[in-house]
Amino acid sequence: MIKRVGVLTSGGDAPGMNAAIRAIVLTGAAYNIDIIGFRHGFNGLLDDDYQTLLPQHVQNIIQHGGTILKSARCKALHTPEGAKQAAEALQRLQLDALVVIGGDGSFRGALAIAEHYHGQIIGVPGTIDNDVDGTDYTIGFATAIDTALDAIDKIRDTADAFERIFLVELMGRHSGYITLSAGIAGGAEQIICPEFGALQPEDLKTLIAPVQRAQLLRGKSSYIIVVAENSYPGGTTALAEALSTALGIECRACILGHIQRGGSPVGADRILATKLGAYAIEQLVLGANLMMAGEINQQAVLYPMAQTGAKKKQIDPYLVRWQQTIASD
Amino acid sequence: MIKRVGVLTSGGDAPGMNAAIRAIVLTGAAYNIDIIGFRHGFNGLLDDDYQTLLPQHVQNIIQHGGTILKSARCKALHTPEGAKQAAEALQRLQLDALVVIGGDGSFRGALAIAEHYHGQIIGVPGTIDNDVDGTDYTIGFATAIDTALDAIDKIRDTADAFERIFLVELMGRHSGYITLSAGIAGGAEQIICPEFGALQPEDLKTLIAPVQRAQLLRGKSSYIIVVAENSYPGGTTALAEALSTALGIECRACILGHIQRGGSPVGADRILATKLGAYAIEQLVLGANLMMAGEINQQAVLYPMAQTGAKKKQIDPYLVRWQQTIASD
Amino acid sequence: MIKRVGVLTSGGDAPGMNAAIRAIVLTGAAYNIDIIGFRHGFNGLLDDDYQTLLPQHVQNIIQHGGTILKSARCKALHTPEGAKQAAEALQRLQLDALVVIGGDGSFRGALAIAEHYHGQIIGVPGTIDNDVDGTDYTIGFATAIDTALDAIDKIRDTADAFERIFLVELMGRHSGYITLSAGIAGGAEQIICPEFGALQPEDLKTLIAPVQRAQLLRGKSSYIIVVAENSYPGGTTALAEALSTALGIECRACILGHIQRGGSPVGADRILATKLGAYAIEQLVLGANLMMAGEINQQAVLYPMAQTGAKKKQIDPYLVRWQQTIASD
Amino acid sequence: MIKRVGVLTSGGDAPGMNAAIRAIVLTGAAYNIDIIGFRHGFNGLLDDDYQTLLPQHVQNIIQHGGTILKSARCKALHTPEGAKQAAEALQRLQLDALVVIGGDGSFRGALAIAEHYHGQIIGVPGTIDNDVDGTDYTIGFATAIDTALDAIDKIRDTADAFERIFLVELMGRHSGYITLSAGIAGGAEQIICPEFGALQPEDLKTLIAPVQRAQLLRGKSSYIIVVAENSYPGGTTALAEALSTALGIECRACILGHIQRGGSPVGADRILATKLGAYAIEQLVLGANLMMAGEINQQAVLYPMAQTGAKKKQIDPYLVRWQQTIASD
Repeated sequence: MIKRVGVLTSGGDAPGMNAAIRAIVLTGAAYNIDIIGFRHGFNGLLDDDYQTLLPQHVQNIIQHGGTILKSARCKALHTPEGAKQAAEALQRLQLDALVVIGGDGSFRGALAIAEHYHGQIIGVPGTIDNDVDGTDYTIGFATAIDTALDAIDKIRDTADAFERIFLVELMGRHSGYITLSAGIAGGAEQIICPEFGALQPEDLKTLIAPVQRAQLLRGKSSYIIVVAENSYPGGTTALAEALSTALGIECRACILGHIQRGGSPVGADRILATKLGAYAIEQLVLGANLMMAGEINQQAVLYPMAQTGAKKKQIDPYLVRWQQTIASD
Repeated sequence: MIKRVGVLTSGGDAPGMNAAIRAIVLTGAAYNIDIIGFRHGFNGLLDDDYQTLLPQHVQNIIQHGGTILKSARCKALHTPEGAKQAAEALQRLQLDALVVIGGDGSFRGALAIAEHYHGQIIGVPGTIDNDVDGTDYTIGFATAIDTALDAIDKIRDTADAFERIFLVELMGRHSGYITLSAGIAGGAEQIICPEFGALQPEDLKTLIAPVQRAQLLRGKSSYIIVVAENSYPGGTTALAEALSTALGIECRACILGHIQRGGSPVGADRILATKLGAYAIEQLVLGANLMMAGEINQQAVLYPMAQTGAKKKQIDPYLVRWQQTIASD
Repeated sequence: MIKRVGVLTSGGDAPGMNAAIRAIVLTGAAYNIDIIGFRHGFNGLLDDDYQTLLPQHVQNIIQHGGTILKSARCKALHTPEGAKQAAEALQRLQLDALVVIGGDGSFRGALAIAEHYHGQIIGVPGTIDNDVDGTDYTIGFATAIDTALDAIDKIRDTADAFERIFLVELMGRHSGYITLSAGIAGGAEQIICPEFGALQPEDLKTLIAPVQRAQLLRGKSSYIIVVAENSYPGGTTALAEALSTALGIECRACILGHIQRGGSPVGADRILATKLGAYAIEQLVLGANLMMAGEINQQAVLYPMAQTGAKKKQIDPYLVRWQQTIASD
Repeated sequence: MIKRVGVLTSGGDAPGMNAAIRAIVLTGAAYNIDIIGFRHGFNGLLDDDYQTLLPQHVQNIIQHGGTILKSARCKALHTPEGAKQAAEALQRLQLDALVVIGGDGSFRGALAIAEHYHGQIIGVPGTIDNDVDGTDYTIGFATAIDTALDAIDKIRDTADAFERIFLVELMGRHSGYITLSAGIAGGAEQIICPEFGALQPEDLKTLIAPVQRAQLLRGKSSYIIVVAENSYPGGTTALAEALSTALGIECRACILGHIQRGGSPVGADRILATKLGAYAIEQLVLGANLMMAGEINQQAVLYPMAQTGAKKKQIDPYLVRWQQTIASD
């Protein structure tokens, strides 16, 4: 029987993590389960840095970005001793289960602990990148899109006033979810992301032709290219310079960076976080172990934690095709 | 073969309608289809109020609320003569098809026209209420949630500073989607919406008990009740007064009203609108008729226009139960 | 010599109050002054509800609406015994001075305490209404304008899509500052506020003529009238109904209400609050008593607390004239 | 007598330029003055690119960023022939006066034209940098602060969750207005701007000491340094790397860039733009020439265009001192 459950946030912070913590604490209280929050991700396990979380501790946090438990990456966990030590901390504190809110990398850490731990472990997908398998969306993704969009809309104002070309770099080293979604929603004239293949200096002409066509045929007064980070050798600034030279028009780069991780979560992230946080506790009570609480087709589901990074999640092919054949032309 | 297509926006305006118009025009251009936009909903058909829409007309509209085609309700269409006259306008203008962006009521109007019209008709669900069957979400719903949430968060600030009880009334005469979603996302202590049953003066005590419990047990410093419009005889102001009297604590009502219809659409609405607008044109080309372009499980699908209002769409029972048993307590 | 200073927030809460508290605490720390925060306004004095405020207590509060010290109105203070009791609390706690953050009403309360108190008292103007004499702007006013504007912009979207007339009611019972400022900034077609004289049913025709002229001459597709609360017998809803009847066009009322008090403070309010909070402490050290820290012509100044409500602050006559003769026509 | 007036926006675009155009057009209409808008700044004069602006052209633009007249820098104007040619265009189009909305550089261009032009010229200060003498604030400055602040608040969320040090680079090559204002409003732990002196690699230790003190003494969980562009050899990214090495803690740079120019103008900018646009027309009617319409101490005033860049505008010394001695410690 579940009496005491630990919770931590790990990896890059994401808007909605606080909403998930709140749902876990409120649901725990309803089931008479004590909730223990560890600080700084897995480091809190190794450093005995924790506190009991009561409903009054999670009042008025649903609307705040960041995480009240702090987050961190934890190198020590990557060693066998680290994982063992973390498991011992869980045993010593008599925790029947642990909830890990984070991305695929954090779930790898949890699985390493599981080898030495007798309790249950469940994951809740919290990362802006939406690159976790087993859930349609991760907590924080919807907010990151709207943050990126807000920047793209502002750049549209100035691009349009000046009739300039802008390159906007968004986060997503391995995944183009944010870039493609924000690019389509921002009405970007072109989108460059990992899923569309790497871009090399010799491919510049494929970028240039549609720019020239757009200005000739459509009289476009602004042109925005949304770019996923690490899409071009030397980065987006180098790409902007190469484009400026090739086109003879000034192209400016704008690197959005860490702004994308913060901010008050939008409704979709708060609802998803509430649902998955509550579901995680309820499934622990029902015996779930080594699973991630995800949402597929609007239904809360369990998915094996070991497979959350197994295959590459696919971006909606319909939108990809539309963007490449219609919007970019 | 589809050569000329009309498009109009009808009923209450919704953020994202412009994004849908843009996708329709861009996709039309890619298929060499002329797009004719009618103004003021179906009135544009009856009044010969229209214009050809080219890609340059839809530049930089994806980010704007409202609708460049204007919207309206159209009483004349409810008479057999009106529907016939509208169909004749479509024939006279040699339109092969009509795209109607609106809610269930607008689709009824379209079906009335269809009885006299030889071309194809397709619907695109645009309404903040999310009360259209055949699609998981309607265009405008996600933005309306975030607008409501922004207000709830602001009221939380002042409720918390003053330790007061606030009732926030949201739109949704027949459907509690906005109210339930914004209520959960706003961390509302209670939610009153049609799906939970009508509230009568004699039911006040069921509201009062949890308020008193919350203050005693949890030391809550603010208490927000989110209420769907028309949930109480005399309205939300009357409900606030009745609660004030019963509790001996000042309860304030805040009626959000038409703010919920406006604003720059959030990413989710722009993406949905882009997808369904493009899909509508592509399906017309493939022969679709009397269908609505919707999205189910992230997949664009067709759904019979005649059935979009047939059954009442159900709100996620998992969240309903969680809200009623855990969050409200 | 100043060693211990109390601080409280009183009256309607205003965005930026937290920024003022932060500046007071940080400046106090720099001067080796202990800062004691009372909760719930003057009630904290009467109920012995207080805490020492250290720099770590005010980290990351500058961006939040509401007030960490809570606010309240305090009826007990209006009796001679109440004021005396509050003064005794200050003496008993060995406070050398008290900082009161609030509006003119709160300063009246402070002056009542001063009759029985041997320490110094200084005021900091915090209210969204901007109706305090001795300062160009009060803390919270700039944010309230932008909150109102955000609503007006959203209503403009839907008014424009529907070609409707909207009345937007803003706060300001005795002062039209918010209404005039938000009306001008929102491009309102008409503005009704106390400074322009009370409106009676028989004056309706003066409102109607410009509406009709605007539609005939300028082809305006939307028409927004911004109204200060209590400007018409029966309220803004009654005014909307009277206008609908007289014009034969549907006019909708939207009552903005308490949303205007909340939200993250805008830059101008955070800077003003920081400046006045710091200045209040520094002036206490220099011996200021029964003064308010205000800002006039961008310069921090002292102003006698007894005169902050003496005369009615005048709204910029240039803008008033422009709005009445040019924008409304 | 003034019958026809030209208007253009020049230099970097700023939120509120549209509000100024609107006020100019509405005020012109009230005085029966034809308003001719030139596109792309001074280029519109040289390229005969202009249109008559009527009140219906400026409906619903007050809330939009950018400029409907487009902006540009104009190299041709820097040659004597260019200035002469521009003056001839004004004569040929029988314009009695020209309104130039822009910054100090744009006013230099206007003065060059004035040597060959028989009509009147008036300037309206529109630039986010607030580096124009003769006005307390320029149009666009208040919005740029709030855009920067929005980014700083978001970075605070993630800095706080991760306990990291962030450097946020803001615009302002020659002036620290944006950096100082946004830094104070964002609660930045340190501010680096031109007014505080250039920073060299050997000065790093002055930055490092307070960082270390803050973490030891105050237990700060996040640390934000706001930096004006061009404050360090190699840029803010190089500064972040140098700090990381020196502190042994990861420091991240975030370059805000062109986002700061866009966005819907805040209330303060819309009101200032409305006031100065209206005032510019009224003063032209009264005979003003080679003057800028500014606002000092909330009063609209004229200031010689030739002196708008004469001396360096001073940042509020009170806030500078407070930031350097109290907030940074």
